[in-house]
Amino acid sequence: MSTDGSMVRENRVIRAMKAGRKAVGYNITFPSPWDVEILGRLNFDFVWLDGEHGPFGLSELESMVRAIEAAGATAVARVPNVEQSTILQYLDRGVQGIMGPHIASGEDAKKLVDACYFGPLGKRSFGGNRGTNYTFTPDSWGDKTGFYRLANENMLVGALLEDQGSIDNIDDILAVEGIHYFGIGPNDFAQGIGYPGESEHPNVVKAMNELSSYIKSKGRLMSGDVMSSEWLHNFLLSGGQAHLAAGT
Amino acid sequence: MSTDGSMVRENRVIRAMKAGRKAVGYNITFPSPWDVEILGRLNFDFVWLDGEHGPFGLSELESMVRAIEAAGATAVARVPNVEQSTILQYLDRGVQGIMGPHIASGEDAKKLVDACYFGPLGKRSFGGNRGTNYTFTPDSWGDKTGFYRLANENMLVGALLEDQGSIDNIDDILAVEGIHYFGIGPNDFAQGIGYPGESEHPNVVKAMNELSSYIKSKGRLMSGDVMSSEWLHNFLLSGGQAHLAAGT
Amino acid sequence: MSTDGSMVRENRVIRAMKAGRKAVGYNITFPSPWDVEILGRLNFDFVWLDGEHGPFGLSELESMVRAIEAAGATAVARVPNVEQSTILQYLDRGVQGIMGPHIASGEDAKKLVDACYFGPLGKRSFGGNRGTNYTFTPDSWGDKTGFYRLANENMLVGALLEDQGSIDNIDDILAVEGIHYFGIGPNDFAQGIGYPGESEHPNVVKAMNELSSYIKSKGRLMSGDVMSSEWLHNFLLSGGQAHLAAGT
Amino acid sequence: MSTDGSMVRENRVIRAMKAGRKAVGYNITFPSPWDVEILGRLNFDFVWLDGEHGPFGLSELESMVRAIEAAGATAVARVPNVEQSTILQYLDRGVQGIMGPHIASGEDAKKLVDACYFGPLGKRSFGGNRGTNYTFTPDSWGDKTGFYRLANENMLVGALLEDQGSIDNIDDILAVEGIHYFGIGPNDFAQGIGYPGESEHPNVVKAMNELSSYIKSKGRLMSGDVMSSEWLHNFLLSGGQAHLAAGT
Amino acid sequence: MSTDGSMVRENRVIRAMKAGRKAVGYNITFPSPWDVEILGRLNFDFVWLDGEHGPFGLSELESMVRAIEAAGATAVARVPNVEQSTILQYLDRGVQGIMGPHIASGEDAKKLVDACYFGPLGKRSFGGNRGTNYTFTPDSWGDKTGFYRLANENMLVGALLEDQGSIDNIDDILAVEGIHYFGIGPNDFAQGIGYPGESEHPNVVKAMNELSSYIKSKGRLMSGDVMSSEWLHNFLLSGGQAHLAAGT
Amino acid sequence: MSTDGSMVRENRVIRAMKAGRKAVGYNITFPSPWDVEILGRLNFDFVWLDGEHGPFGLSELESMVRAIEAAGATAVARVPNVEQSTILQYLDRGVQGIMGPHIASGEDAKKLVDACYFGPLGKRSFGGNRGTNYTFTPDSWGDKTGFYRLANENMLVGALLEDQGSIDNIDDILAVEGIHYFGIGPNDFAQGIGYPGESEHPNVVKAMNELSSYIKSKGRLMSGDVMSSEWLHNFLLSGGQAHLAAGT
Repeated sequence: MSTDGSMVRENRVIRAMKAGRKAVGYNITFPSPWDVEILGRLNFDFVWLDGEHGPFGLSELESMVRAIEAAGATAVARVPNVEQSTILQYLDRGVQGIMGPHIASGEDAKKLVDACYFGPLGKRSFGGNRGTNYTFTPDSWGDKTGFYRLANENMLVGALLEDQGSIDNIDDILAVEGIHYFGIGPNDFAQGIGYPGESEHPNVVKAMNELSSYIKSKGRLMSGDVMSSEWLHNFLLSGGQAHLAAGT
Repeated sequence: MSTDGSMVRENRVIRAMKAGRKAVGYNITFPSPWDVEILGRLNFDFVWLDGEHGPFGLSELESMVRAIEAAGATAVARVPNVEQSTILQYLDRGVQGIMGPHIASGEDAKKLVDACYFGPLGKRSFGGNRGTNYTFTPDSWGDKTGFYRLANENMLVGALLEDQGSIDNIDDILAVEGIHYFGIGPNDFAQGIGYPGESEHPNVVKAMNELSSYIKSKGRLMSGDVMSSEWLHNFLLSGGQAHLAAGT
Repeated sequence: MSTDGSMVRENRVIRAMKAGRKAVGYNITFPSPWDVEILGRLNFDFVWLDGEHGPFGLSELESMVRAIEAAGATAVARVPNVEQSTILQYLDRGVQGIMGPHIASGEDAKKLVDACYFGPLGKRSFGGNRGTNYTFTPDSWGDKTGFYRLANENMLVGALLEDQGSIDNIDDILAVEGIHYFGIGPNDFAQGIGYPGESEHPNVVKAMNELSSYIKSKGRLMSGDVMSSEWLHNFLLSGGQAHLAAGT
Repeated sequence: MSTDGSMVRENRVIRAMKAGRKAVGYNITFPSPWDVEILGRLNFDFVWLDGEHGPFGLSELESMVRAIEAAGATAVARVPNVEQSTILQYLDRGVQGIMGPHIASGEDAKKLVDACYFGPLGKRSFGGNRGTNYTFTPDSWGDKTGFYRLANENMLVGALLEDQGSIDNIDDILAVEGIHYFGIGPNDFAQGIGYPGESEHPNVVKAMNELSSYIKSKGRLMSGDVMSSEWLHNFLLSGGQAHLAAGT
Repeated sequence: MSTDGSMVRENRVIRAMKAGRKAVGYNITFPSPWDVEILGRLNFDFVWLDGEHGPFGLSELESMVRAIEAAGATAVARVPNVEQSTILQYLDRGVQGIMGPHIASGEDAKKLVDACYFGPLGKRSFGGNRGTNYTFTPDSWGDKTGFYRLANENMLVGALLEDQGSIDNIDDILAVEGIHYFGIGPNDFAQGIGYPGESEHPNVVKAMNELSSYIKSKGRLMSGDVMSSEWLHNFLLSGGQAHLAAGT
Repeated sequence: MSTDGSMVRENRVIRAMKAGRKAVGYNITFPSPWDVEILGRLNFDFVWLDGEHGPFGLSELESMVRAIEAAGATAVARVPNVEQSTILQYLDRGVQGIMGPHIASGEDAKKLVDACYFGPLGKRSFGGNRGTNYTFTPDSWGDKTGFYRLANENMLVGALLEDQGSIDNIDDILAVEGIHYFGIGPNDFAQGIGYPGESEHPNVVKAMNELSSYIKSKGRLMSGDVMSSEWLHNFLLSGGQAHLAAGT
């Protein structure tokens, strides 16, 4: 959040997309601002918060976004569901990228987009919190059109495809305006198409590849085209394993 | 909460309504019990918590209600949505006034009312938490009818109108029993009727005025008739600005 | 959570069911890990968390589950609703038993079951958190079928019947596979069938008995057949009352 | 805290002392406001917080005092040490009774008293927090003599004797003005006089009795003369044991 | 904290001192990062945290410093005492200004200075936390002399005079190198010289004036020469009072 | 903490010492139980908490110890100072290893030991918290000698040497019974002997080597003989750097 109270933070993932390079970041599944501060010594474009599975209560979430912003990165989150009131709370905390899980129909996709953007593209609610700069908009008090436009321009939206419906309704999904990229969650996708626990089953791999190819054939992007991410889990475990190997 | 375990706190907004005067309070969008304690030196009727946009996790919310009660005021909240399970958590924390956002149909209004009141008026669930005095009801253990009645009598319900549907379905909304007053959120209302960011656009102002007049013509109240509120933001900023002006 | 990272904790309630004895535990409605640690000196099978009414934010919930596990007990929770994303957060914290409130139709029951189990029985989402052992599954990285099976085998599911619909649709509810036992919430049930606040009204008692008998006649279990529980409230109050009586 | 901002809360233990009866309360060693709220249904005079051993961080401590005040009781605490800055933080949270541990000399006793009272009796620092009503004193802004007097009159001070020095220097300790009562911590006292772990050793019992008799012979009070307390631990455990016995 | 991990934040109070102007800020006595964020819309030089009286636990303190830094201001704190381990925790959180209370002798002053600065001026301990940029110093890993120098240059130290000893030993106090300015706490000073509660007593006012004049006569600064501050309490109360007056 | 309430956890560092092998663990400077849970998939002997520099409030500290115990490891901590009341709070949380900073004299060493052990070796206070199993000792209620002995046998004590006094008074320090090992903090040691910021200065390195050799010549152990540790910081940073290198 800028000190003059007039600006929306630039979304570094969108900036990277425009520059034709992948944004680099990491996924964290728990609300520790300290991990973010330490990794803030490095120059990551984004930090991806797993709000679907991780214990991010509202004030923990906000602490995380403060730490991410202090590290100069963009806060991106997978949300638990695509209800308007769920996504709104993420945006009001300062999150600037939303990954909607289980997008399995055109309606799901529309719901996701409606929740993420102010009008005219969406239906995001405006309220006086940190995601709206505590109402300090760049416009006059009454006119927020400039602020809405800036907020929308720096809003990143991804859709996670992980159900049979995602395959069946892919054209409806692709038709919804406002989604920057698509991802496939291998575990839930495998279960969603009838192979629970078998994300490496040939039929699953084949289905993922076909879906991904189809999306790209329509000129759209997959998450791997936009972002390069890694789980913070793995930073810890590979470091820990190396230390254990050396220490004993 | 009373020490003898037998009473429901009197709702000061409802008391003021009955006395034909406006209740006075302030809106806070973040869970700081200290701001509430300090302002508790003054004699406000209510404190309005913005649960739609602010970071009120469940235990933060409860801390706030404790501080509000200690200040002798009534806790009122705008909730994120009107799902029964969402509103229930506010009531179980001790909140005695609910403002439901985006009431755009008779069903929305009914859902709001059902969630706020015990039967026969509504369908609020009873459980052993602070909003139900940890099950210490004024009746015998088994018979809770007296407690239900007292709780309902001290329950304040408001509906926020901020969509095209709110206009189209206003008669259905007004027909639902149990809503004390109506409010219009200018930003979301403007967006809801096709003018995102332009809450001061003449068409928006006109629509708000018409809706408000219509409601009053039916003998019902608008929030401005019931409550006089101000954002705590503004207390801070006007004080801070005066100090900056004097200090430099 | 085991230190070798390979196992799912055994569910003590399910173990007791298989052994033909009632599991013994207590109900807590607030997130104090200390109460759990102290009662951990005794050997309870389970701790039942009231997530419908109590202030269990996500990180408070997780702290509770850690304390419950440290006490060697199984964490069981009543959830606020049966939305998939709601229940998932409980499971991802490490809760191994879910009591779904207001199960009033076959669809409600199916939603509950889908949220609680991995496939093929349900649709629980897999993500890297403590409920999934931070992705350390007993299988290879890719193959999670063994982990899914173990997790499902140690998943306890109960359905709370507290509406007229629960009576009307009991056959549909009973037809849904995966529910171990049924409970009746007297207060909400009384309200649900038209007697708000009168859980001891003869008609209410009669309806509860009939519903319960019908379920048992179908060879199914009621919560009282499976678990013996008590409210922690009552431990405090009976101790406090005895002390007051002695102290004054 | 009163809503008119003008008063100091009456200390119920001191009120009971004056009325010639024992105050009744309980000891809690962990920061759960919920236990306090539930027991608040009963009418305890005080709640005793174990700040020497329990995990009462500053904001947890303040939450506890809020809950205790809401229950109409007086907050009393054993502090970790008798440093002025340690005790001040308890008083600034709203605690109105201090039990100083390990008072083994006249200097220790004086340090305790100095920290607990405003002048002229002591040296307590005045700052704008909840224990000083956020500076809303009953006097004019500048003149705080009335507030100091009221605060001192409602300040309860106890000294814990648990070292050889407490015996050797008992006359010096008794000579310090401002201590209402004395207590003996059996475990630490036993260790302090050379019998670690043996609080029931005849020599320990004898020494405790002699010290206690000597203090009473000087017309002073022991904690058992002033307060009747019980550990909340025991409420939980006796309730839990009874339930286990009944449940299995 | 800068994103390249190499720099120490510039202390805005010291910058203002060098520029010959007063720094402007406000005093907050409770750990609400939201108040800081909202006031962050204005351009304050510093935020002064009252660690002597306010409930700033370690992680609450750190949250505050994050919010203060995000607002572009310098975090300054009054500490509970001048023990090295107490002050160190403030510095390790990122606080860059320390106000030591009750400096009543040369030894007190030396203790304060030793705790605040790295060598050669002081004895601050170096550890890997946010106040030391998680060990990312601008020098090589081994050589921290550059970092120590920068940290010291941006360290602001004030001494609070509020005891008879402060008067008696003022020359010893002034002789200690490293203190930028001196303050007098009227309430504690009045008590310290024998007029508890009477900060406006003529003798107190006279003594304060004399002490202040003496310090200035030695070419040293008083806090009023360096900083213009106001209590956030007063922002809230003046706003609240105006609203109450208008609203009723 | 064991479920039968009768045992003291075995200290894995002491076990390793007895077995003639180094214990392996890692140092964490912030209170994130999640990092501990994830690293709990690996089999570390201990987790070392930096209480001198890190933001471990009391309840955060306790959460960490719970997570460490759940991972089957021993909680060890560097404390902010060696005051009895400071160390007691770590022990009461369940920490079983204490590293005392700035041990510069025999008195410092004695203070450290007194605080860590129950009698007869030390003067640790006994109170009903988790570090004392909530008073569930293996003995009768009155006789705690067995518990004291077990607690002492599983108490690890280290002394950090980082001042000129540590060199000058090394014989007095070594003469104090109860310290298992000694460490040298290079940064503070360098400053302590007159080379602030220059831990790699030849004179510093020489002095460290001499002190270390002297200690070993007396048949005592250095921390490197007992424990192999690494900073969790480095796990994060090396993982993060590798990912950045691969991702861009």
